[in-house]
Amino acid sequence: MLIHSFLFCQDFPAIFPRILGHEAIGVVESVGEDVNEVTEGDTVIPTFVSECGECADCKSTRSNLCAKFPRPSNFMPRYGTSRFTDLSGEVLYHFLSVSSFTEYTVVDIAHITKIDTAIPPSRACLLSCGVSTGVGAAWRTAKVEKGSTVAIFGLGSIGLAVAEGARLCGAARIIGVDVNRDKFEIGKKFGLTDFVDPANCENNSVSEVIKEMTGGGADYCFECVGLISLMQEAYACCRKGWGKTVVLGMDKPGLQVTLPSLDIILGKTLTGSLFGGLKPKSDIAVLINRYKDKELQLDEFVTHEIRFEEINKAFDLLIEGKCLRCVIYMTNE
Amino acid sequence: MLIHSFLFCQDFPAIFPRILGHEAIGVVESVGEDVNEVTEGDTVIPTFVSECGECADCKSTRSNLCAKFPRPSNFMPRYGTSRFTDLSGEVLYHFLSVSSFTEYTVVDIAHITKIDTAIPPSRACLLSCGVSTGVGAAWRTAKVEKGSTVAIFGLGSIGLAVAEGARLCGAARIIGVDVNRDKFEIGKKFGLTDFVDPANCENNSVSEVIKEMTGGGADYCFECVGLISLMQEAYACCRKGWGKTVVLGMDKPGLQVTLPSLDIILGKTLTGSLFGGLKPKSDIAVLINRYKDKELQLDEFVTHEIRFEEINKAFDLLIEGKCLRCVIYMTNE
Repeated sequence: MLIHSFLFCQDFPAIFPRILGHEAIGVVESVGEDVNEVTEGDTVIPTFVSECGECADCKSTRSNLCAKFPRPSNFMPRYGTSRFTDLSGEVLYHFLSVSSFTEYTVVDIAHITKIDTAIPPSRACLLSCGVSTGVGAAWRTAKVEKGSTVAIFGLGSIGLAVAEGARLCGAARIIGVDVNRDKFEIGKKFGLTDFVDPANCENNSVSEVIKEMTGGGADYCFECVGLISLMQEAYACCRKGWGKTVVLGMDKPGLQVTLPSLDIILGKTLTGSLFGGLKPKSDIAVLINRYKDKELQLDEFVTHEIRFEEINKAFDLLIEGKCLRCVIYMTNE
Repeated sequence: MLIHSFLFCQDFPAIFPRILGHEAIGVVESVGEDVNEVTEGDTVIPTFVSECGECADCKSTRSNLCAKFPRPSNFMPRYGTSRFTDLSGEVLYHFLSVSSFTEYTVVDIAHITKIDTAIPPSRACLLSCGVSTGVGAAWRTAKVEKGSTVAIFGLGSIGLAVAEGARLCGAARIIGVDVNRDKFEIGKKFGLTDFVDPANCENNSVSEVIKEMTGGGADYCFECVGLISLMQEAYACCRKGWGKTVVLGMDKPGLQVTLPSLDIILGKTLTGSLFGGLKPKSDIAVLINRYKDKELQLDEFVTHEIRFEEINKAFDLLIEGKCLRCVIYMTNE
């Protein structure tokens, strides 16, 4: 059995035709030569970020960006070739080094993390990308402190996972910003205390409203949509002196973020991360333990469980804003 | 005796006529009602950053931006009035809340730090702005770590003070960037190990040269000139994964910094600070102790000592790039 959930993600250079899907869990069917870290039958999570364990970044505690395989690939990253063909023999390319919308996939060991099977696979798969990204952004990238004020732009699953991460870090106030008002009730489960609907700010910008609510700006702001304008708005509403804005979303390739230079020397910080700054091979295990200890919420993210044959229903729900995570079940028999 | 050195600084909204000068040392002549922190005869350093000691920022260890008097003022900050007139009775305005090119000035206690008189005043005055700003940026804002690689754009006294701070933090490699090649020899006293002359980079940008020199980018980059283009170049040459760029310079008011959005989520951080992120009333004492312990170099910054009547010679030297700090002596007899 392979289980998949999915997420839209702005890709690095894309080659078609390809097998999509990158947030998943699976069981090892076989391993290549020189692979000792996992063996047949192991339960594993693929991740679009790699961890070779040997490069300067992997050896550092400061980075989760493997320098050996720096970008999610259209190929097997170590070889630059595809392992897939269609029935006519035409090459199908990889997606984010994972390609999980398929019964069988081939993933480099640098992109694979063996996991504890005590966690249900329908929950563990969320740690393959979205929930790890959001929780990690609060925990590892921003290092949200107890009592902090947090503002989150975009309350999809990643934004809600930022709220969950901020809640676990002890944030006192978690403000969500979204055009979908239903997200306030949903977000309360993950620690949301306040909600700002941009359509309801009268003649003020969202950043002006949040600065007013917080007496000068939030301690930590997160952009979880992938729009340059929201990255700038998030930066505008973080506090002078120590406010930190973390960008998780990706807008179209090549676009630039523009910041007022005065805000920079007044102590605001802008940063960002992929996969929440987490190192998959060590940090996913920490999150699994926190789930088992009933600290980290995962069940609450799964709103639908759908068979692979009906995957388009899941896309429809996503587009309509009516799901958080749809877990897609697949059997390979 | 009052002793002054000087520094050009991009001002916040400026009102003329005014008394310039903001980097100084002096002796208290008298104090106003309710001032208990200093008394007549104390040696003090004025600073353009304030420290009221009561606001959220002053009480936090994360910020040195006093929220009570957030901006250097054209007036006495607590009252919004000037204490100066010329001989005809016309109002003269304050400069950065200090106004030190004068025999007597009036400074709010929030902008005054009492200091240890064991340090010569011609050295202590450097801690009133420039050297504190540079050393603090490496020490407090960037938190440069032992073994780090540092790139500094602009080797005026602030840039050289960043080098001095990075040297004290144990940086392994300190790369200076300046159009004045003489600064390499001068910079070696402060720990500079490498030098990049932008005119000597052939067809490459400075950031490409530094990325090549460092195998991917510097751990910490500092902009010490005040040009948007250099802030962007500094950001471009900091390392993906954990590179941090600190902006100390100020360009014209209202200008904006533009950053590639992809670099942000690849873990680069942009931040900045005023006065190096130092809290004057506690951190200046630390720097004085490090000078007394022969760790922090100050003597090496003083290239000229000039009488106040000849202050324009100091400006000429500054414009010609032939001085670091010119200490201006003044007698009030």
